[in-house]
Amino acid sequence: MREPPIGDVFGEMIRDAYAVRTGVGPRPLAGGRVPRPVIEVIERDDGLINGAPADHYLGEPDEWQPHDHRALRLCRGHVLDIGAGAGRTALELQRRGMAVTGLDTSRGAIEIARRRGLRDTVINTVDAYASASARYDTFLLLGNNLGLLEGPERAPVFLRALAQLANPGARIIAQGTDPYGTTDPVHVGYHRHNRERGRLGGQLRLRLRYRLLATEWFDYLNCSPAELEQVIAGTPWRLKSIDADDHPYYLAIMELAG
Amino acid sequence: MREPPIGDVFGEMIRDAYAVRTGVGPRPLAGGRVPRPVIEVIERDDGLINGAPADHYLGEPDEWQPHDHRALRLCRGHVLDIGAGAGRTALELQRRGMAVTGLDTSRGAIEIARRRGLRDTVINTVDAYASASARYDTFLLLGNNLGLLEGPERAPVFLRALAQLANPGARIIAQGTDPYGTTDPVHVGYHRHNRERGRLGGQLRLRLRYRLLATEWFDYLNCSPAELEQVIAGTPWRLKSIDADDHPYYLAIMELAG
Repeated sequence: MREPPIGDVFGEMIRDAYAVRTGVGPRPLAGGRVPRPVIEVIERDDGLINGAPADHYLGEPDEWQPHDHRALRLCRGHVLDIGAGAGRTALELQRRGMAVTGLDTSRGAIEIARRRGLRDTVINTVDAYASASARYDTFLLLGNNLGLLEGPERAPVFLRALAQLANPGARIIAQGTDPYGTTDPVHVGYHRHNRERGRLGGQLRLRLRYRLLATEWFDYLNCSPAELEQVIAGTPWRLKSIDADDHPYYLAIMELAG
Repeated sequence: MREPPIGDVFGEMIRDAYAVRTGVGPRPLAGGRVPRPVIEVIERDDGLINGAPADHYLGEPDEWQPHDHRALRLCRGHVLDIGAGAGRTALELQRRGMAVTGLDTSRGAIEIARRRGLRDTVINTVDAYASASARYDTFLLLGNNLGLLEGPERAPVFLRALAQLANPGARIIAQGTDPYGTTDPVHVGYHRHNRERGRLGGQLRLRLRYRLLATEWFDYLNCSPAELEQVIAGTPWRLKSIDADDHPYYLAIMELAG
C-alpha cells in the first residue's frame, strides 16, 4: 500500500457526517441504500487502529456529556472556541447571546460551522492567530481538545500563544482525559513504551484517516491532572481547579498567573 | 508505519462486539467509561478506508434486512451456512428445528457462535471441507457472502467445492450487492480502474483491520446479476432466479445443473 495523500480529513468527514445527520447533500452509502454512519478512523503509531462514529461532532446540547454543559457555564466575556470543528459548542454559546469566535485549522469543518449559523470563525492555527489583534476572556478546549497541548515541548508554545490573545483575567477551560485507569494491555503497554522513549504515557502519536485521505502524524496528549500541572509549569498559566466529576474525563480550569 | 501483524481480525472483532452487546467480558472502552461501538475497518487497495459498526453481525431477526428473512424461507434439508460468523442466521435456523452447520475460517467467530448456542460448527475453508463426507441440501451465503466467490478465477473452484458437498437437488442461496448504481466518483473510478486491469468492476481487493491486527489482502466480489451469470458459467451450478426486491442487494438462487 502506498501512503494515503494528506488532506483535510476532518473537514471531509464533518461534511459527510453533516449530510448524513441532516439528509441534505451527497453522502456515502453502504452499497447504495442502507445508511452508513460516518466513521472517524484513528491510527496510533503502535499500529492500533480504531474507528469511532463521527456524529458526536454535531451533537445537540441534549446529546452532550455532562461536563460540556458545566464547561459552558464557566464561560465569560469573549470566548475563543479552539478546535471548534462543526461549531457544536460555539453555536450554543452564540445562541445564548455570548461573543464567541470559532477557530479551527480545518477549512471543511469551519464551512459546516458557518452553514449551521456560526457567524465569527477563523481558519488558522493558534500560533499564527496569536499575532492578530483580537483578545479573549475565555479559551475553550472541549471535545478532549486539551489534547492539542500535544506534550511537554509543544504545550508552553501553545499556551504562550493563548497568553498573547488573552485579556487580563482570562481563563482556559479545557476538557482532558486521564488515560491511566485502563487495564487494557494494549494501552498499558503503549503507555510503558511511551515512557521508555521519554514521552508522557498518554502522549499519543496519531493520524486520522477518512476515505482516501490521511492527516500527517501528530501528537495528542491524554494526561492526568498531575501531569498537566507539570506540563504547564513555567508558562503564563496556572491550574486553578479540576472538575473530575466525570472521571476519567475532566475539566481543567487555568488562569493567567500573576 | 510497519505493516500490522496478520491475525484473526474477524474473530477478535466479533468477540468484542459480543462483549459490548451483552455487557459480559472485557471490552474496549473509549477513555474508560463511554461505551464505544466496535468498528470494522476495511481498507481497499486504492487507499479507501471505511469503518462500519460490527454489531450487525450479532443482529437478532428483528434487526435483519428483509432479504435475510426471505432467504431463510428458501432453506430446506441440511443447511451449510458459509461464513457463518457469530451464527446470526445459523442460530435462527437451529431455533426453527432445521439441520444446520455453521462454517467459518475464523476460530474466534465460531467460538462466539458456539457460546451463543450453535451446536454444529466447522472451522475450515470450503475447499478443505469439500473432502469431508458431509452432504448438504442448501448452501447459505448471507451478509453479502456472495462476495466469497472473489472473482472469475476463484468462483469455479469455490463452486466445485460446494458441488462436492451437495446432495442431488441442492441449492445455493447467496446475497450479493450490485455495485454499479453508485454515482460516488471514488467508487465509479475504482470500478473503471478495475476493468482497465482486467478485473470485474466490483471485484474489490480488501483487507480488514481491527485494533492491532490485519488480514491478508483478499478479493471480494460485488457483481451485478448479469456478471454473476457469466462468472458461474461452466460450473456445476446455474442461476435459477434473482430476488432483487431490496436492490442494490439481491438474493441469487443457484441450483445444480442437470
